[in-house]
Formats: sequence, C-alpha cells, structure tokens
Amino acid sequence: MAAYTRFFAYLTVVFVAFSVAYATDPTQLQDFCNPMAVTADDFFANGLDKSGDTNNRLGSAVTPVAAAQLPGLNTLGISIARLDFAPYGLIAPHLHPRATEVFTVLEGTIYVGFVTSNQPDNRPNKLFAKVLKKGDVFVFPQGLIHFQLNVGKTPAFAISALSSQNPGVVTVGNAVFGSQPPISIDVLAKAFQLDANVVKLLQSKFCASA
Amino acid sequence: MAAYTRFFAYLTVVFVAFSVAYATDPTQLQDFCNPMAVTADDFFANGLDKSGDTNNRLGSAVTPVAAAQLPGLNTLGISIARLDFAPYGLIAPHLHPRATEVFTVLEGTIYVGFVTSNQPDNRPNKLFAKVLKKGDVFVFPQGLIHFQLNVGKTPAFAISALSSQNPGVVTVGNAVFGSQPPISIDVLAKAFQLDANVVKLLQSKFCASA
Amino acid sequence: MAAYTRFFAYLTVVFVAFSVAYATDPTQLQDFCNPMAVTADDFFANGLDKSGDTNNRLGSAVTPVAAAQLPGLNTLGISIARLDFAPYGLIAPHLHPRATEVFTVLEGTIYVGFVTSNQPDNRPNKLFAKVLKKGDVFVFPQGLIHFQLNVGKTPAFAISALSSQNPGVVTVGNAVFGSQPPISIDVLAKAFQLDANVVKLLQSKFCASA
Amino acid sequence: MAAYTRFFAYLTVVFVAFSVAYATDPTQLQDFCNPMAVTADDFFANGLDKSGDTNNRLGSAVTPVAAAQLPGLNTLGISIARLDFAPYGLIAPHLHPRATEVFTVLEGTIYVGFVTSNQPDNRPNKLFAKVLKKGDVFVFPQGLIHFQLNVGKTPAFAISALSSQNPGVVTVGNAVFGSQPPISIDVLAKAFQLDANVVKLLQSKFCASA
Amino acid sequence: MAAYTRFFAYLTVVFVAFSVAYATDPTQLQDFCNPMAVTADDFFANGLDKSGDTNNRLGSAVTPVAAAQLPGLNTLGISIARLDFAPYGLIAPHLHPRATEVFTVLEGTIYVGFVTSNQPDNRPNKLFAKVLKKGDVFVFPQGLIHFQLNVGKTPAFAISALSSQNPGVVTVGNAVFGSQPPISIDVLAKAFQLDANVVKLLQSKFCASA
Amino acid sequence: MAAYTRFFAYLTVVFVAFSVAYATDPTQLQDFCNPMAVTADDFFANGLDKSGDTNNRLGSAVTPVAAAQLPGLNTLGISIARLDFAPYGLIAPHLHPRATEVFTVLEGTIYVGFVTSNQPDNRPNKLFAKVLKKGDVFVFPQGLIHFQLNVGKTPAFAISALSSQNPGVVTVGNAVFGSQPPISIDVLAKAFQLDANVVKLLQSKFCASA
Repeated sequence: MAAYTRFFAYLTVVFVAFSVAYATDPTQLQDFCNPMAVTADDFFANGLDKSGDTNNRLGSAVTPVAAAQLPGLNTLGISIARLDFAPYGLIAPHLHPRATEVFTVLEGTIYVGFVTSNQPDNRPNKLFAKVLKKGDVFVFPQGLIHFQLNVGKTPAFAISALSSQNPGVVTVGNAVFGSQPPISIDVLAKAFQLDANVVKLLQSKFCASA
Repeated sequence: MAAYTRFFAYLTVVFVAFSVAYATDPTQLQDFCNPMAVTADDFFANGLDKSGDTNNRLGSAVTPVAAAQLPGLNTLGISIARLDFAPYGLIAPHLHPRATEVFTVLEGTIYVGFVTSNQPDNRPNKLFAKVLKKGDVFVFPQGLIHFQLNVGKTPAFAISALSSQNPGVVTVGNAVFGSQPPISIDVLAKAFQLDANVVKLLQSKFCASA
Repeated sequence: MAAYTRFFAYLTVVFVAFSVAYATDPTQLQDFCNPMAVTADDFFANGLDKSGDTNNRLGSAVTPVAAAQLPGLNTLGISIARLDFAPYGLIAPHLHPRATEVFTVLEGTIYVGFVTSNQPDNRPNKLFAKVLKKGDVFVFPQGLIHFQLNVGKTPAFAISALSSQNPGVVTVGNAVFGSQPPISIDVLAKAFQLDANVVKLLQSKFCASA
Repeated sequence: MAAYTRFFAYLTVVFVAFSVAYATDPTQLQDFCNPMAVTADDFFANGLDKSGDTNNRLGSAVTPVAAAQLPGLNTLGISIARLDFAPYGLIAPHLHPRATEVFTVLEGTIYVGFVTSNQPDNRPNKLFAKVLKKGDVFVFPQGLIHFQLNVGKTPAFAISALSSQNPGVVTVGNAVFGSQPPISIDVLAKAFQLDANVVKLLQSKFCASA
Repeated sequence: MAAYTRFFAYLTVVFVAFSVAYATDPTQLQDFCNPMAVTADDFFANGLDKSGDTNNRLGSAVTPVAAAQLPGLNTLGISIARLDFAPYGLIAPHLHPRATEVFTVLEGTIYVGFVTSNQPDNRPNKLFAKVLKKGDVFVFPQGLIHFQLNVGKTPAFAISALSSQNPGVVTVGNAVFGSQPPISIDVLAKAFQLDANVVKLLQSKFCASA
Repeated sequence: MAAYTRFFAYLTVVFVAFSVAYATDPTQLQDFCNPMAVTADDFFANGLDKSGDTNNRLGSAVTPVAAAQLPGLNTLGISIARLDFAPYGLIAPHLHPRATEVFTVLEGTIYVGFVTSNQPDNRPNKLFAKVLKKGDVFVFPQGLIHFQLNVGKTPAFAISALSSQNPGVVTVGNAVFGSQPPISIDVLAKAFQLDANVVKLLQSKFCASA
C-alpha cells in the first residue's frame, strides 16, 4: 500500500513537472505527436460535407476540426472549421484569442467584417467589411472582433483555416452578458452606457440562450 | 527624372520585401534593436509617478510604456502601463490581442475579472473575478475579455506588465458599437438580442464618446 | 550625383540591416502588417470558385492564396490553396519546408498519403495513406513527403490550409531530377540505384517538363 | 507484481516522452494552463505591498511572483517581482538567462545600468547607466549583466516585469566565486587577473555568504 | 483492482493532457530540462573521434548526437552529428523537416549541394553546389533537399550542427521508393515519368536495402 | 531639393517601421534570406582548418562563423565557431545571451564547466564540469556562465554549434571590470566583497587588456 501511495506521489511530481507548459502552439519536435501506435486514421476526420444544425436563435453552426477532434493536429499549429448559415443566419461578433482566421465562402453571399484595436490617437476603431460571394476569401487577424452574416435568402457555408490547433472562441455577447457568474451590473451599465435594467434584461436573455 | 522614378521603384521593392515580417514579437537577435548610436536614454522612460487624467466618462486613464514610448523595448517582447482610477472609475471590458497582463494594485481597492473562451459543451463562459487590495496581483490571459473597477471612495492606481512590446487594446463596447464605419444594425441587433432602436442609441452614444 | 551615390549607399545599409530577419513567420506585433493606408481589399482575395487549369502532364493545378497573393496575410502565419485534379490527375510527391497542410476534399475521390522521416532503427519509412471522399480531411505534417491522386473518373478539388504565410513547395522529382544546374549524375545514380543512362533520361524529361 | 512492474515501465515511457520539452515559454494553446478545477485564486497573488527583508550583506531583497508562486502564469510568458533596497542597498551584477526586465522605481533614487555583449572589434563592452527617481522606467535586455544600487539615504523599492514565467537569475559573483563545487582556481586566477590567494579568499567569502 | 483501473484512467488523462504539445523546439523555461538529479554526464557524450561504419551500399555513416543520445539537449533547440564517407561515399539526397544544417569538412574533399523550393514562375528549382575542402563550411536551409559526396580517393568526414534537438531525416529515395507499405505504382510512375516496371524494380531495390 | 528632403523623410518612415523587429531568430519565411541574386558562395565560408591566433594573455582564440561572416545563415537560427587553445590556454567565464552551445573537442584535453542559475532555496549555484578528450561533446545551456581550459601541454581546438545566427558573447570579467564607462566602484566593491583599491586595480588591468 505504501508503494502504491509513493506511486501517486511520483505521478504528482510528473504531473506538476509537465503542467508547466503542456499548452503550447509549437514548432514540432517530431514528425507528429503520437508517441505510440499510429495509423492513418489519426490524421483523418470526416463529415465536413454535412451542414451543421443551424436551427437555433442565430441560425448558424460551427463544426470545428481542431486537435480535440483530429489528434494528428497536435503540435502542428493549425486547424479548420466548417461554418453553416441558415438564410440570414449570423455568427455573432467574436474573436479567437490564439489564431488568425482565413475564411473562404463555398456557397452563398456573406457579409463579413472585423474591427481593429483601439487607435492610439483616440480616433474610433476601424471596421473593415465586405460582402463575399462564392470563391471569395477574407482574413480576420488574431484577437480582433469579427462577424459573418448570411445576407442571402438561401443557406450559405464556408470553410475557415485557423492558425492554432486550438484557436479558442470568445463570443462577445456571451462573454460579456452571459458569463457564469455574471459580471457586476455596475461594470456593464457604465461600460456600455446602458440602464441597469437593460443590463439585467440582457443578462437574463444571454443566460437563457446559453 | 527617370532615375528618380526607378529609385522609387527600387524602394518599393525593398519595402515590399521587408514588409513581410516587420511586425513580430521575437526572440532577439542582438542585445537590443537600435542599429546606430544608442544612449542610456533609449532604454529609459519617466513620468509613471504621475496620475493619468481620469476626468472622463469612465473615470480612468491608461499610461502605456510600450515600444512606441520607449524604443529600447523593440524586439524584447514586453511592456508596461500605469492604470489610474477616479473613485468608482472603470476600465471597461477589453482584451489585448497580443499579450497576457499581470496587474498589481499599488493604491486602492479594485474589483477585477476576466471571462474564459466559449466552453466546448455550451456551458456558459466562466468569470474569474476578485476584489484586490494594495499589493495584490492578478493575471489576465492573452485575448480574454477583462475589466477593472475601482470600488473604493478614493483614487486607485495599478501597474500592469504585458507580454508584448505592442499589446494592443480592443475595448469591447467601442469596437462593437463605436467602430467607424459602424457594424450593420442587423448584425448587432441579432447578436446582442437588442431592439434596432437600442442599437442605434448605443451607436450614437459610443460615436459621441469616442 | 555624389549625393545620389551616397543615397544608394545609405539604402544598402538599411537593406543589409533589415535583411537579417525579413523572413519570419511571426507572432504579430500589430493587428496586421500594412503600415499605411489599408482597406478591406487588403484582406480579400477571390476566384477560389474557379478550377485551375489542369491541362498539363500531371492533370492537376494549385491556386495559392498566400502572402504574395493576399498581402493582409503578412505576419499572420497562415495561408490556403485550392487544388484541382483532372480525372486521374496527380499532385506529385512533394513537401512544404515551412508548413503543415490540412487538406479537405470538396469534390471527388482522392488517394492521399505521407511518409514519415527515417526510423531510428533502420526500419523502412512508414506510409500513412487513405482514400478520401467529399468532406474528408487529412493532415500532412511539416516537411514530410506527401501526394494526392484523383482516383475517380470525374474532376476533383480540395482546399488546403497551410501553417505559414509562405509555405514553399519542393516537388521531389523536379528538385532531384530537374534542378538548374542538374545534380551530378554520380550522385543520382548511386542514390537512386539507377543506371547513369536512366538518370540522364529522367533529367531530360524533367528538364523538358519544367 | 509483473503488472506493477510493467506499470512503472509504462510510466517511464510517458515520462521520457514528455521530458523532451516540458520547459518552454510558449504561445499558449488554451486560455490558461490549469487542466482541472480552477478558481480565481489560481490567477492571484498578494503581499507585494510588503517590503522584503533587506537585512543582509547587500541590503536588498527580491520577492518574485513567477509561475512557481502564481500557477496561473504557466505558459503565459511573463512574471513580475518586487525589489527592495535598504539605504545604499545593492542588487549585485546579475543576468536573467530567459528574460528581458522592465524596471519601474516606486520609491527612492536608484542607480542602474547594464553592459552590452562583447564588441566585434574588441572595443570594450559598453555600460548604459542612469540614476532613476520615482516613476522612472529602465530596460535590461535579456542575458545582459545589470545591477541596481540605492543611492539615497532612505529605503527604495521597485517593481520589475520580466518576459518569462521563470526568468532565472545568475548573480555573477555567486556563480563565479561561490559555485558548488568551486570552479578551479587556475581558471579564475587567469580569467580575472587575480592572485590565486585572492581567488581563494573570494571563494571562501562567497561560500560563507551563500 | 478497481483502484488500479482508475489509476490507468488517471494516467490516460495525464497522458492526453500532455500529449498536446510534448514535441516542441522551444525557448527554454529552465536552465535545462532534467527535473530531478542531474550530473555533468547528462550534458556529455563521447565517441565523435571514431569513424562510423561506412561499409554499406552508399559508403557513408551518420553518428547523431541529438536529444535521444544526449538528454541534456532537451528543450535547447540544437544538436550535432558526425558524418563519415568512404572514398566516393555518398549521403544521398535528403532533407531535415525541422532543422537547418551547418556542415564543416574536417577531412577530405566533398561535393555538396542543395536545391531550392519550386520557383513561383515555373522556372526550374535552383541547385547551389560546391566542392568543399578541409575547413570549409556550407549551409543547408531547413526542409530543402541536399546531398554530400566524397569526391576524393581517401576517407572524409565532417561535423554538422543542426537547429533542432531532433532534426529528423527524410532520405528521398527511401521515402519515395522504400516506404512501408509502398506508395502506389500509379503515383510513382506518373510523378517520376517512369515505366511501371522500373518503379517496381526501384521499390524492390529500396525495400531490400532498407 | 524639397523632393529630395521628402524622400529622406520617407526613408526614415520606412526605416522606423521596420526597425521594430529587424533582429529576430525566426522561423524562416522563405528558403533563405537573400532576396536578390544569390550564389552558392552566399552559403559558404572557409578557413576553419586554420588555428586562430592564441598569442594573447589568455592563450585562446575564437573564430566565429555566424551571420556576420556567412550571410546565408540569416534567419536560420544557427551558427558555429572554431575555438583554439595554446597549452593551458583559457576561454574565460562567459555566456551567450541568445544561444545554447554544443562543444566538440577535435584535439587536446580540455576542462570545461557551466554554473546553473541561482537556486530557489539559497543553496549555492551548481557547477557541472568535466575534463574532455578528443571526440567528447558537452552542452552549455543558454545564458549560463561557462569556461574552457586547455589542461594539456599541447595546443587544443574544438568546434562549437550555437543555437542563434548571432549568439552574442558576454565575457564576465570584461563586462564587469572592463566596461566603458566603468561600473561604479561602490557597486563592484560591495558586490564582489573586494576592497575599493582591488576593484580599481582590476579595472585598470581589464581596461588595459581590452
């Protein structure tokens, strides 16, 4: 039993030692990152020919193919996603804390845009936006807020390439008004120039739609 | 004249060639990045003992000391800032697309928090928040939305360390409701579950306060 | 005139100073890398809905959307490409010295594979291969030799995401047998266990097809 | 028992596999690096309002807030420290093998400087030094020897930001004259142009003060 | 027994957590990467004064000193190798997916070269080649195909520095014609403009020589 | 003339824009970093078969082959050097702020060592040292103080690989006692536990030997 206990202690040491940096988008050190038996299926995913389920409030769906879905991407610094839009469907303003996104329209007409970071001279943040058609490509730089809206009467879809194996997504509305626990109403009312009751209403809406 | 024209053409080639990557947070290649005559003043800045001007809508001020202010920081991957708060002053929800922030309270009592990226299982984004006193330190990871609110009756200030020579700031309200040109009302009304008139009102407020 | 000469001398100094590292796939230092007037078109490319011209010996075409085609990708560490295949068209064994590739089939049936680096114990290099259909995704890790063959009777196409703004392509046959000037026949005959005349024949074929 | 043995063998494999690179200052792969239950306290440290104990030979104290003290800094590439000085207290010449330091004086008058690496043309290494007052900021680039001396009659303190979660400190005197085991006297006498007896004396002093 | 099972489950969690990025060529986070007892021997290797065994088809031998042979190299981003050549011995065209190589001739006369990646304008790939003598140095950039041939009547040897702790080697002939399982003959015949029977012959030769 | 002036102003803008990060040890963005006409000689250096001139106080010489000597190394993150030692010659304690060193003895018997950074628990810095013979290899991690002493009666030499195109060298004695201008005697006397007169003597010696 004592040996068993020491064993856990040993594991803990290993765990702590490695926890220092288990989360990096690296230059790879080996051909790929699957130490033991590997097959072609470790580098394979399928289903990107199928639309995601856009039957939701925003009318959109994201189908990621990142390291969590496709283990062969581990340590390779890249992932992709399929984005589906019902007619007038929206991917709400969001950002990727760890990736730039290259967005290619495969079907439909999509209005997209991103907003730059604060200007040094207190001029307003700039919006770069464009209506994209099939075959058009647009870039959303890392960490900047962007959105995509289907402006056509038919479903639309796109494929995005992202410069991280785990890009992360921060949807602004959800993070600001729907976090758990909620951000204090004082902060949100002052920041967004809203009445406290409007903030409460927004929080209840985002809480319900989470 | 033709020579002059060729000259500009040559410059353009040089410019394009180098524009490829003039914007990196690098491992340095030299002791520091000042190719010609350098003095101690290139590594020096002053004035962080003075409060910034908090006489504004939010009651806060940011005084950055980044590569633009202190050239010796070029290529070194780090910068700092002094943050001042009037009583109940707020630094509104924002994020740094290129840096983690380590925030140290030097005077006052400040409520701070950040919100994680979207959860894989559609649970709400998590808020990590805390009331900090003098001598307390808090970490805001890169690309995540965070805020700081003076919850005391007296002025407060803090120093932040940031892991980039040019961290960038995206203040969420300004980027979403105050961009130039504005994001389409369709996008914002749907994304934030707001009536179009409320969006218009917010846009006019943020436009005025820019 | 002397001033003009000094001017070029000055330019050369600037050039050399910056040539040290103008070629990096970096963490960005700014939102994006376009120092002066920027418009949405700097982040935009089009035409990926059109097939490339596959009327060539191999029956394939690559349409890159990298930093050279889409300046907004500068410093952002990612690019994409459209790959077209005539029936039985082939993208011959090649590698990307600076990027991992994530390959998604949008139309057709494509046999793909990559080969690992040399095994430490002198066992053969391993091939990971698979026949992909529409909606399937496969990963080719950085620097490893891979290929794609349309095994269907109809045209096929795919989109690839690549983890560099300028991934580079080394097509093995062209590099080995078609370089200018050619690699010495002694090297190639010994390396590939081929008769010198066969090497000469291959060199003439690859030279002609370049 | 055999299973237990195999278990250790398995662990060893895991250990070796991960030991390859557990120690990197990375771009993060997740919002932060705490795999299991996380609370706000994981991003929190306190006590930087208290002076360190400067009652020692040099009259100085360093209070680090790095990944070892504040686990939330793991993988985020930044840390800070509070530096305290008794009147005339000194932080002796030292360097950080993995970080640039941005030093801000919060109280007192401090003489600081760093020395560049060897000049290519055998001219002497250059010293960049300055007397700093409250609110002044100075940069010490990565890997260069630097020092800080309180030149006032009152206690002084400063906060430093460092561009690594674990910057490391090499205090020159201790490393050269106080290592365990000691560097051979032949090396030190010749390198520092000192009599062997002076070297022995220095070694005994640094050994005692360790 | 149940505890034992849970134990394996726990290990699997640890394993998966760390497998994300155990394979990076990093900036180091500590002086070196040996968490427990370390001695000088962890930074030591020997035997580079001995020739490798060149008694093989190509008349060459590679003796690597990388992280697998010298654990102290872990996380430090560099390794070396000794390369031996019998008279007319060849290191066949190959590439390192993760490293640039700096090659220094210590004895003999060696013809070396590398081939650039595909030219954007469909001009042929360029060969940069040179005959090197004792004391000469040549650079082979990361991911590019290169070779080394002893063109003298006497044995030759060299030392290479490589910019990764685990550079990897892809020998083109082996990867293309000797992989296990083999690449389909259709692919190779079309890619290399060879008759299917010649491909089969090559595959049998490379299979036998593996 | 005004145009000419504006021209310089334009150049200055270009210069400043690019000076942000011209100094990085990068992942390369192209095969190599020579934008215009390149020949094999850009990847070539010679003379490493010749001993450096060891006729100096320390009896040693360093012959670097870094980016300054071999332009083809630009952006490739690696360099080498030949190190020569007269009998009992010494390379004095020094460190490389930007590189790990892998040291291989080609002739002679050399005592080498490095000292770790400060221990967290105030135990002394650890020395890892060893006497090396021909064919032995030793690693000096980035930023740590190390030395090499020929302990044989005959000349010795070695080749080092370094993990940066411009590793930098900080020779401790020169930087501490020989900088220009000198570090204040107060700092050095207190730091090294030396009498002010001994410091002055050391400064005059290092000043003379610079």
